[in-house]
Amino acid sequence: CLTITSVLEPGQRLRVQKTVAHGWSGARSRPAMSDQVEAALAAAGHSGWDGLVAEQRAYLDDFWARADVEVHGDEEIQQAVRFALFHVLQAGARAEQRAIPAKGLTGSGYDGHAFWDTEMFVLPVLTYTEPRAVAEALRWRRDTLPAARDRATQLGLRGAAFPWRTIDGSEGFAYWPAGTAAFHVGADIAHAVVRYVAATGDTDFERETGLELLVETARLWRSLGHHDHHGVFHIDGVTGPDEYSAITDDNTYTNLMARSNLLTAADACERHPDHASRLGVDDEESAAWRDAAESVHIPYNDELRVHEQHAGFTRHQRWDFAHTGADQYPLMLHFPYFDLYRKQVIKQSDLVLAMYTCGSWFEEHCDEDQIARNFAYYEPLTVRDSSLSACCQAVVAAQTGHLRLAYDYAAEAALMDLADLEHNTRDGLHIASLAGTWMALVAGFGGTRREGDSLSFSPRLPEKFSRLAFRLQFRGRCVSVEIEADKATYTLVMGDPLTIRHHGKPVLMNGNGPVTRPIPAPKRRPTPEQPPHRRPNAR
Amino acid sequence: CLTITSVLEPGQRLRVQKTVAHGWSGARSRPAMSDQVEAALAAAGHSGWDGLVAEQRAYLDDFWARADVEVHGDEEIQQAVRFALFHVLQAGARAEQRAIPAKGLTGSGYDGHAFWDTEMFVLPVLTYTEPRAVAEALRWRRDTLPAARDRATQLGLRGAAFPWRTIDGSEGFAYWPAGTAAFHVGADIAHAVVRYVAATGDTDFERETGLELLVETARLWRSLGHHDHHGVFHIDGVTGPDEYSAITDDNTYTNLMARSNLLTAADACERHPDHASRLGVDDEESAAWRDAAESVHIPYNDELRVHEQHAGFTRHQRWDFAHTGADQYPLMLHFPYFDLYRKQVIKQSDLVLAMYTCGSWFEEHCDEDQIARNFAYYEPLTVRDSSLSACCQAVVAAQTGHLRLAYDYAAEAALMDLADLEHNTRDGLHIASLAGTWMALVAGFGGTRREGDSLSFSPRLPEKFSRLAFRLQFRGRCVSVEIEADKATYTLVMGDPLTIRHHGKPVLMNGNGPVTRPIPAPKRRPTPEQPPHRRPNAR
Repeated sequence: CLTITSVLEPGQRLRVQKTVAHGWSGARSRPAMSDQVEAALAAAGHSGWDGLVAEQRAYLDDFWARADVEVHGDEEIQQAVRFALFHVLQAGARAEQRAIPAKGLTGSGYDGHAFWDTEMFVLPVLTYTEPRAVAEALRWRRDTLPAARDRATQLGLRGAAFPWRTIDGSEGFAYWPAGTAAFHVGADIAHAVVRYVAATGDTDFERETGLELLVETARLWRSLGHHDHHGVFHIDGVTGPDEYSAITDDNTYTNLMARSNLLTAADACERHPDHASRLGVDDEESAAWRDAAESVHIPYNDELRVHEQHAGFTRHQRWDFAHTGADQYPLMLHFPYFDLYRKQVIKQSDLVLAMYTCGSWFEEHCDEDQIARNFAYYEPLTVRDSSLSACCQAVVAAQTGHLRLAYDYAAEAALMDLADLEHNTRDGLHIASLAGTWMALVAGFGGTRREGDSLSFSPRLPEKFSRLAFRLQFRGRCVSVEIEADKATYTLVMGDPLTIRHHGKPVLMNGNGPVTRPIPAPKRRPTPEQPPHRRPNAR
Repeated sequence: CLTITSVLEPGQRLRVQKTVAHGWSGARSRPAMSDQVEAALAAAGHSGWDGLVAEQRAYLDDFWARADVEVHGDEEIQQAVRFALFHVLQAGARAEQRAIPAKGLTGSGYDGHAFWDTEMFVLPVLTYTEPRAVAEALRWRRDTLPAARDRATQLGLRGAAFPWRTIDGSEGFAYWPAGTAAFHVGADIAHAVVRYVAATGDTDFERETGLELLVETARLWRSLGHHDHHGVFHIDGVTGPDEYSAITDDNTYTNLMARSNLLTAADACERHPDHASRLGVDDEESAAWRDAAESVHIPYNDELRVHEQHAGFTRHQRWDFAHTGADQYPLMLHFPYFDLYRKQVIKQSDLVLAMYTCGSWFEEHCDEDQIARNFAYYEPLTVRDSSLSACCQAVVAAQTGHLRLAYDYAAEAALMDLADLEHNTRDGLHIASLAGTWMALVAGFGGTRREGDSLSFSPRLPEKFSRLAFRLQFRGRCVSVEIEADKATYTLVMGDPLTIRHHGKPVLMNGNGPVTRPIPAPKRRPTPEQPPHRRPNAR
C-alpha cells in the first residue's frame, strides 16, 4: 500500500503514473513468475509512459498495416470490422498456449470456456493476420492431448476426443447429446492445423505439433465410424454444428470434416515418416484412414436434389414457422428439445457451413447450381438462434450471388455486440461473431478461399459498398486485394511471386505492381426466403 | 396403547389376536376413511380369525379355480408360475384406482413408480384372471388424464402424453431421451383398454372410461406424427421399448402400437358417437386417425429382408460382442449411452415384442418365415439387460418353433426373483417379469392370442413339459386349455359357446365336453444365436 500526499493550488494538475505488470502460468514456479513480472516492471519503468504507448502503437500500426480491412460505403461496418479485428487480436495474440475463450477476456459469459468457435471462427482471422497466435492456440490443444486421449478411452474410442467446452482440456459439459456427441470439434482442430500450415508453410510446427493433433483426431474418426456391407463409411450418433438436431447419423459437416481430417493426417504422415512412426502410425493405419475418407457417406435427397444436413433430415417434418411468434425466439427458450430435434429447423449453419469449410469437395462433386439449391433449401429453415450463423450464411449467400442478403448477414455479424443484437453483450463480446465479420467480408465479398498452397478469390460487392480492400499474410507474403463494383486489383506488397485465381482464372502476382481483373456478373437467382420474423435486418 | 397382562404356567400358551384395518385415499375425507376402517374392524371382529382366514381362502380358491396354470414335468416352474400369479394378484387386485408399481408393494425399488410394464405385462395376466382389477388400474390412468393433457400441451402436442414413470400422474423422470420420448406408453394404455374390453365385453367401461383414454392417446399420435410428401405417416424422434436406442425415427413397435391406437379409437368413437362427440371428436378427426394409421411407415431392410427396429437401425454398426466380457453386463453400467445408442445392440425386446403385441399386423402383412427371420436377426443383438425381455423372447421363440429356447427364456422370467438372477430382488419383486412367466407359458407354449372377439391357440410344448394346463376368463366364460405333446384339449367350463381357432382352424367349444385336436409339428429352423455370455441358462 502506497500513500501519495500533495498540495495542489487551484488550476494545478497532479498526474500519477502507475505501472502494472501481469504474469500467469499453470506450469512455472512462483519465483519464476515473480521474476517475469519484475522484469516487465523494470522494462516499463525504463520505457516510461510515452515509451509504452509508442511500443503499443508500433505493434498495432504493424498489425493494421498487414491486417486492416477497408470498407467504403458503409461507415458503420467499416468501424465494426476494425472493432472486430482489434478484439480478435486482443483475445488471441497473448493467449500463449492457453485457450482463447468464447468471450475472450471481456466477460463472464460461458464461464471462461473455449469451444470449437476458436478453431473455426477466430483462428481463420488470425491465420491470415497474426499467424503466430494460431500456433500458440494449437499448441494449447496439443498440450491437452492427454485429457483428450483419456476421454477417447473412456468412450471406447481410439485417438483423442476433444472436449466440447473446456478451460483445462477436460470435458466441461454434462449434457452429452449436445456436447461430447459433437465430435466435429476434433476435425475442426485438424482443419485449423492444416489451414495454419498451408498459410504459413511452418513445417516445423507441422512436424512438432500439428502432426500429433492430426494423427490423434484421425484415429478418433476411424474408430468412431464404420463401414457398412457395401463398404460405405458411416459416422453414426453424432451432433453437428446445428444444436437443434442431436445424435444423428452421417451429419454431412461432420463427415466431410472427418474426411478431410483423415486425408490430411495421412498426407502429413507421408511428409514426416519418422515422426509419424514415433506416434505409432504405420502404412496400414494411414491407408485405412484414406480408405475411410474416400468412402465416407454424404447423404443426399434425390427427390429434392439437395444434400442432407444428416441422414433423414429432409424427410422430417418442417418446423411450424407460421405459428411461431416473433417473441418465441430463441426457440430453445420456448420449446422443448424433444420437438426441436425431430423437426426441420436449424439453429445455426451446418450444411451451409460445410459448403464453405469443405468447399473443395463440393466444387469437385457438384456444380454451382447445386450449391445454390442447397443454400436455398436451408435458408427457410435456419433461425439463427446462435451468433455463429450469420457470418456463415453471409459467405455462402455471397458465393451464390445473393449479395444483398449477404450484406444484411454481414451487418448482423458485425453489429452483434456494437448494437447488442442478442441483448447479452453485458456477458462479454461474441468473439467468434466478431471474427465472423472479417469472414463475411474477406471470404464472403472477397470470395477468398485457400486452394492447396495458394489462394483463390471470387470477389463481388454488394451495392452499398463502393470499395472493399483487405490484406492477407500468406507464406511470408503480404497480399493486398482491392475490390470495386466491376473490378478487383491484386497487389503483392511483399514476398515471392504467387499465382492466385480470380473467378477461376489464374493470375500471376509478382513485384511489378497491381494486376486488375474485371468481375463477372453473378448468375441471377431468386433470393431465398428466411423463416418469418427471422429475416436479417435490412440495412 | 394397550397393555395385556397374563400369568402363564409352564406349557400354557397365550394367543393374542390383533385385527388391523387399513384405509387410504387421496380424495376422501379423514372421517370417511376413519369410518371405512372402523367398519372393516367391526366386520373382522364379527368374522373372527377363522372367519377371516376362511374368507381369504375362499377368495383365493376362487382365483385359483379360474386362473391356475399347471405344469407337469418341471416342478420349479410349476412353483414359480403360482408364485408369480399370487404376486401379480396381490399387486393388482386391491390397487383400486391407484397405480400398480413396478415392484408392487414388495420393495422400494424404482421408488414406488409405475411404468408401461403395468399395461403391457401385468394387466394382460389380470385381464384373463381378475379383470375387475384391470378396470380399476385403467380408471387410475383415466384419473391422471389432466396431468397427461398438461404434459402434452407443454410439449406442443394435442391429447395426452402419459408419463414414463409416475406415482400421481406427473412425469417423474428427468432424462427425457429415455423417458418422455418413449411416447409408446400412451399406446400401451390404449392397448390395455382394448384388450380389457375385448376380453370382458364391458361396454360400460369402454364408454365411460376407455373411450376417453383411446381418444386422448389417438390425438397425441396424430399430432406427434406427420405425413411426408408421399403421404406416408412418420413418427420421428421417439424412443421405443429398447432402452439402448433413443430419439429414433419410425420405431416399429411405436408405429404399430400407434396405428392400433388410432384405429381402435376411431372404432370406439363409432360405437359411442354421443360420448365421442362430447369429447369433441367429429367425423373429420376420426377419419384423420384412420388415414394416419393406414399410411404409417414400417421400416424394412430389403437387403436383409427383416423389419427394422427403427429407421436405419440395421445399417448401424453391430456391437462388438466378441470383445465384451461376461463381467461387462449389464452394458449400461460399463459403457456410455453415446456408444450404446448408435450401435446394433438391444437391451430388451422391441421389434420382437411388436411381433407379439401387434401380431395381427404381421399375420396380415407377412408369412411365418418373415417372423422367424426377424426373430433370428434380433436374437444375436439382444442382451436382456432388462427383466422385461426374456418373457417376450419366450413368446416369439415358441411361435417360431424354437421350443427349447423358449423354455430357457420362460425359466429365466419365472426364476428372476426366486433365483435372484439379477441380484436385486432385495429391492422388491419384478412384478412384470413375474407376469411374464404367465405370458411365456400361456401366450408362448399355449400360443394364446386374442383375435377380435375370440381367442386363438397355437400350442406346442417344450420337451420337458408333459402337460401344460391353464384357464382363462373370457367374456363371461371360463375356458380350460390342456396341452400335451401331441394334442390340445379345449373345454368350456362355463358360459356361452365360442368358436376359437386351434393352429389356424376353427374349433367350436360348447357345453358338450372337451374337444381335442392334434398339434402339428413345427417347421424346423436353426436355433438363433444369442450374444456371447448372454445365452439364457439351459435348464
